[in-house]
Amino acid sequence: MGIKYKEIADILEEDILKGKYIEGSKLPTIEELMKKFDVSKNTMRSAIELLVIKGYIYQVQGSGIFIRPTVREGSINITNMRGLSKELNTPDVRSEILKFEVVKANKELAKKFRCNLDTELYYVERLRIVKEEPFSIEYSYFNKEIITYLNREIIENSIYEYITEGLKYNIGFADKIICCEKLTKKEVELLELKNGDMALSVENTVYLTNGLIFDVSKSKYNSNKTKFISVANYR
Amino acid sequence: MGIKYKEIADILEEDILKGKYIEGSKLPTIEELMKKFDVSKNTMRSAIELLVIKGYIYQVQGSGIFIRPTVREGSINITNMRGLSKELNTPDVRSEILKFEVVKANKELAKKFRCNLDTELYYVERLRIVKEEPFSIEYSYFNKEIITYLNREIIENSIYEYITEGLKYNIGFADKIICCEKLTKKEVELLELKNGDMALSVENTVYLTNGLIFDVSKSKYNSNKTKFISVANYR
Repeated sequence: MGIKYKEIADILEEDILKGKYIEGSKLPTIEELMKKFDVSKNTMRSAIELLVIKGYIYQVQGSGIFIRPTVREGSINITNMRGLSKELNTPDVRSEILKFEVVKANKELAKKFRCNLDTELYYVERLRIVKEEPFSIEYSYFNKEIITYLNREIIENSIYEYITEGLKYNIGFADKIICCEKLTKKEVELLELKNGDMALSVENTVYLTNGLIFDVSKSKYNSNKTKFISVANYR
Repeated sequence: MGIKYKEIADILEEDILKGKYIEGSKLPTIEELMKKFDVSKNTMRSAIELLVIKGYIYQVQGSGIFIRPTVREGSINITNMRGLSKELNTPDVRSEILKFEVVKANKELAKKFRCNLDTELYYVERLRIVKEEPFSIEYSYFNKEIITYLNREIIENSIYEYITEGLKYNIGFADKIICCEKLTKKEVELLELKNGDMALSVENTVYLTNGLIFDVSKSKYNSNKTKFISVANYR
């Protein structure tokens, strides 16, 4: 078993995410895919199985390989982490910086980061604006021992792009806690909501592939505009 | 490549979900696991990789295999589907039936189920009660051509247990839409909330492994008591 089947799965995953196969439609048959990628049936089957586990496709005996409808536009797939712009399929995403400073990890943050007390952290507060409308407020901490440098230009744009392309770090995965939360008066104003409206809120703990936690953040989304989608498997 | 590595992954998955390895702690080393399961390094590595993809564990070079903290008590992992009782790790879950009837699929439901207009559906409305406190309200439709029989006794208990153990169907996966929603006056009363409170709501489309949609439902959760957890991978 080589690494090959994973590379094929990656290519198909990109294709699916880019919308190459329209929702509800099918992938080519295993035989056609074998030809396309010039691999054995076993390799092709392993690639397909991986995409099934990842929640992109499902197989129906005798009728083919179908794309799951969760690859949908306008919603945020919380089991992926692709950045707002890719997720919402629009380049029209910008950020307004509300706060940008260096703080020291208190007990709670040190626990969340699994770092020492008083470790220096960047604190970034941003209003994310999509198509010129307020979309979410992000409160993020970055471990300064890992993300050693940030500036206003970087955080006005994509911090994650800077981390992956500038610092060449491998972002791995995140744990998320999703809940429904009250908004402060200031948040209501920023998100242009009404008093008493609540937000869909997500707490993220983000790891590099080496297991280090570099980002702990909370995002509050305009609950009138946001839906999250997710895939689940039965156990 | 046999099926073996998947069986090992299943065993380890069950162990992790049952809390055999406490949060934040490690799995045994690859070498120890190879010995335990009496398999080759390649097979063991494949099993570990599968659990990484499924979001249970992560590997840190030189320091071991760690359990991801999302395997946490008291929260609902929305990327799993294990039923409330298993998810909250308590047997103290019961249901109060609010409505139980047979209806015909209108245009909207026919589209969601990918079934014909006027197909007969069971409609079940339940208040889910955990540890004698109202936890969620569930509005579920079941395609009667697939789930041919339901009665009050079944729906007072676990419908999914009946489907898997009674009807011997293989439940496959679900697509979920999560949002923050207003509650009706009746829902506020049932969930013992305050007027103006919102619910964390989940719309589920549930498939058998053969791709047939048998259940379309919406659950509204008491937003003061419920947190969802989820894992995400960077792409």
